[in-house]
Amino acid sequence: MNLIILSKNDFIEGTEQVSIQDYRLEHIINVNKSSVGDGLRVGLVNGNIGNGMITRIEENKVEMNVVLDRKPPAPLQLTLIFAMVRPRVFKRVITQVSAMGIKKIIVINSYRVEKSFWKSPVLGKKSLNKYLITGLEQGQDTIVPDVLVRPLFKPFVEDELPDIIKGTEPFVAHPYTSEPCPYNIGSPVTLAIGPEGGFIPYEVEKLIECGFTAVHLGERTLHVESVISGLVLRLM
Amino acid sequence: MNLIILSKNDFIEGTEQVSIQDYRLEHIINVNKSSVGDGLRVGLVNGNIGNGMITRIEENKVEMNVVLDRKPPAPLQLTLIFAMVRPRVFKRVITQVSAMGIKKIIVINSYRVEKSFWKSPVLGKKSLNKYLITGLEQGQDTIVPDVLVRPLFKPFVEDELPDIIKGTEPFVAHPYTSEPCPYNIGSPVTLAIGPEGGFIPYEVEKLIECGFTAVHLGERTLHVESVISGLVLRLM
Repeated sequence: MNLIILSKNDFIEGTEQVSIQDYRLEHIINVNKSSVGDGLRVGLVNGNIGNGMITRIEENKVEMNVVLDRKPPAPLQLTLIFAMVRPRVFKRVITQVSAMGIKKIIVINSYRVEKSFWKSPVLGKKSLNKYLITGLEQGQDTIVPDVLVRPLFKPFVEDELPDIIKGTEPFVAHPYTSEPCPYNIGSPVTLAIGPEGGFIPYEVEKLIECGFTAVHLGERTLHVESVISGLVLRLM
Repeated sequence: MNLIILSKNDFIEGTEQVSIQDYRLEHIINVNKSSVGDGLRVGLVNGNIGNGMITRIEENKVEMNVVLDRKPPAPLQLTLIFAMVRPRVFKRVITQVSAMGIKKIIVINSYRVEKSFWKSPVLGKKSLNKYLITGLEQGQDTIVPDVLVRPLFKPFVEDELPDIIKGTEPFVAHPYTSEPCPYNIGSPVTLAIGPEGGFIPYEVEKLIECGFTAVHLGERTLHVESVISGLVLRLM
């Protein structure tokens, strides 16, 4: 946790004082090993970043005096679309993506996605929010990404995707193309990443029809987490 | 497992027939759900890649007729140096790095590395080899990377590093520099990545003295796995 994220509810009404009682308390005491008078990086969810000065530590709460005087980092101008992954992997991917500063995330279906994945509690609103906040705590950001979940491929691509890609360069990661992924695009990007084994030809065709360019990352088959951070940091 | 990696011991002497009995047997039966007559991608450790045709399946072994007629993918012209990480993370990192096609890996110390990490069994020869092979199975490659373990920072940087970086462009990932990481270097690279929290100023100075350029990946603090794949796929 590189940034402690505060919500409006943490503030003692009418003051710049916060009182923290949950996992953040534990982190401040056991990981940061902070004492009264120490400063910590804090940020208000969807708001500014700044510093918190610890004014009191009790067994079940920490109080800080908070100054929020800096804007969070600029959002990455990239919309990420990825095929639903195994729930255990999903947690790591969504946290990583949130840490990277991606603010528009769309989880879609593909022929090769196991149907059972869609029933996983990881897609519930509360779980999702927890993973996104963990990512922001890692990346030192406060703006919670928007996550859309679209379990039907065709209607999503036909009805919603054309508007989503407007004003962006759309790429789809596809191992079976001759075009290597370009570098440093310099404009907003939409990036689509398939499941293990890739999108099937029908799906790639639908995306190309919609305006996407298929690009590859080399001969090797990489894990979804490597593919996402590799493509994002190469394109942006 | 996208490629089944064979060793010389798997071959029935004097034939092109292999007999497999370990975790690969389980994978072929339970994950691939293969039958007699099916073809599978195989590769000989440190050798060629090709196809295996299943000739017999028994409860405790699978036999294949193997043709190894293609070279493995070209190695990535990148030497990766990273500060030792938490053992649980190390397994994932070393597997990922092997999957990416990096063949020279050096695990080093840094002031911010917890001393206990060096005692972990993950650094044992057998464990290391297992993670490297898992990476090759993922990335569809056969060439086992070389891993050097160097638990003393200063002698490594002073005595060994100058030779290691010869003929390469050396970069060190460092959040506190104004220079963004460049793209698509087009020549061999040496890349050094610090621990959580980064190298300390003394260490960065030693690396710069040795010829390294300090580069950053943006304002956000990313997890070591994202940093590695992001930097590698951006530089190469």
